[in-house]
Amino acid sequence: MIELLLIGIGTGNPDHLTLQAIKSMNAADLIMIPRKGDNKADLAELRHTICSQVLTNPRTTIAEFDLPVRDAANPSYRGGVDDWHDAIAGVWEQTIRTHCGTEGRVALLVWGDPSLYDSTLRIAERVGRILPVTVTVIPGITSLQALTAAHAIPINEIGAPFLVTTGRQLRDHGWRADADTLAIMLDGECSFQTLDPQGISIWWGAYVGMAEQIILSGTLEDTGPLIVQTRAEARARHGWIMDIYILRR
Amino acid sequence: MIELLLIGIGTGNPDHLTLQAIKSMNAADLIMIPRKGDNKADLAELRHTICSQVLTNPRTTIAEFDLPVRDAANPSYRGGVDDWHDAIAGVWEQTIRTHCGTEGRVALLVWGDPSLYDSTLRIAERVGRILPVTVTVIPGITSLQALTAAHAIPINEIGAPFLVTTGRQLRDHGWRADADTLAIMLDGECSFQTLDPQGISIWWGAYVGMAEQIILSGTLEDTGPLIVQTRAEARARHGWIMDIYILRR
Ligand SMILES: C[S@@+](CC[C@H](N)C(=O)[O-])C[C@H]1O[C@@H](n2cnc3c(N)ncnc32)[C@H](O)[C@@H]1O
Ligand SMILES: C[S@@+](CC[C@H](N)C(=O)[O-])C[C@H]1O[C@@H](n2cnc3c(N)ncnc32)[C@H](O)[C@@H]1O
Repeated sequence: MIELLLIGIGTGNPDHLTLQAIKSMNAADLIMIPRKGDNKADLAELRHTICSQVLTNPRTTIAEFDLPVRDAANPSYRGGVDDWHDAIAGVWEQTIRTHCGTEGRVALLVWGDPSLYDSTLRIAERVGRILPVTVTVIPGITSLQALTAAHAIPINEIGAPFLVTTGRQLRDHGWRADADTLAIMLDGECSFQTLDPQGISIWWGAYVGMAEQIILSGTLEDTGPLIVQTRAEARARHGWIMDIYILRR
Repeated sequence: MIELLLIGIGTGNPDHLTLQAIKSMNAADLIMIPRKGDNKADLAELRHTICSQVLTNPRTTIAEFDLPVRDAANPSYRGGVDDWHDAIAGVWEQTIRTHCGTEGRVALLVWGDPSLYDSTLRIAERVGRILPVTVTVIPGITSLQALTAAHAIPINEIGAPFLVTTGRQLRDHGWRADADTLAIMLDGECSFQTLDPQGISIWWGAYVGMAEQIILSGTLEDTGPLIVQTRAEARARHGWIMDIYILRR
């Protein structure tokens, strides 16, 4: 039996690691790390930095694997993602067989928390169809918590709900009526620009938790344009960006 | 100047602590811990356990304080909570003055993450009105992440939104239309019972992350009654309970 350990590592600050994450990494026979691509080099490097900082078990092996590329030409978005997840599951399976056979503890280091807009659990499920596995999840600090911590704000108003959603959802459906607080992730287009800014406040952050962290907050009317500009400049400077924000009305 | 460190400690598993939390605790001159009440004794005790496990700085003092009791007789719920937060802020201020004067780093250990249905940030703001303070937030593992980890499930469907809300909101407003996934916290009454269970799945957990953890999942129709019964028994056995669940339709 293979035990897959999906370990949340937080959002780029090695100090986001929990003691549980560190113990799980050291309990693993194998840690699989996607090979450094041309882009987002910093993120691939971070996993190695984390390993070198906290691994004390000499019997833990690190194996790099090549992340298959998603076929953006697939006319069905969902179909393209499904095929891609299958391809990744195949690469995991091969890497596991090479290093562990069918017996051992195999860890994956997951950005943020494995439950939140992440495909690792879905890929693990596919591996489970071709190899006998159990899946254990170790929670990690999410980018949403890194954002609220950076601004020192609560995410909710007292006793009130909040909706966590994506840039695409905001563009396609606007501000749905049920919550006065939205948290927006996976937004490559500053989709808050599609809203009437009247009466809305924003708390925005890029690279939250990392050395490069930038945060901005204020009324959407005043701060929105500043965010668009700051984001474009930061993205050009670093070659990549990850950002997240909260809207409240 | 007083630096208030609001440190998320996770949901009862001392291994939920992040390295950042441990460093912050050891950077503090004073750690303020509410005195053990008659109820939820386990929770008060946990903070002491955590301190004894990770504190290595001999200059860090631990001070207990008596948590004021909320006046449940106040006819206005919000007014009652406001007064209560003022009273807690007053006790913090006194404790800080006694141990640090007006200069030093003061840590509070916050259950889960300080951003999520927690009053610590609001109380800190009130302290800021009577004492010059800066507030620093250290994120922690939330009960929602401990729940999804225990069930090894994603919180969202691919690219889809989810609403985080309370038992009271669910009772008062039903399942609002905008998200197919709800996460329910602060529910003392198994408020899922107010829904038509047809087509709804539930993932429930009590004491998540703790040694006492209980989890149940399945269709709401079959699993709902089992949760009601399990919850009542566990509550009677332990004298207290904290539970949380995800509904998906
Ligand atoms: C594929 S999702 C993964 C989320 C991750 N599992 C988590 O728990 O935060 C990627 C999105 O998370 C957000 N994100 C992740 N890390 C971030 C960071 N350090 N700063 C800002 N946003 C971040 C961005 O919205 C990004 O589009
Ligand atoms: C006042 S809120 C605090 C939430 C906390 N700040 C967090 O990040 O999880 C208390 C609610 O959190 C949930 N909760 C906290 N700890 C829990 C645990 N160990 N197991 C299940 N639910 C928990 C319950 O819904 C409870 O009613």
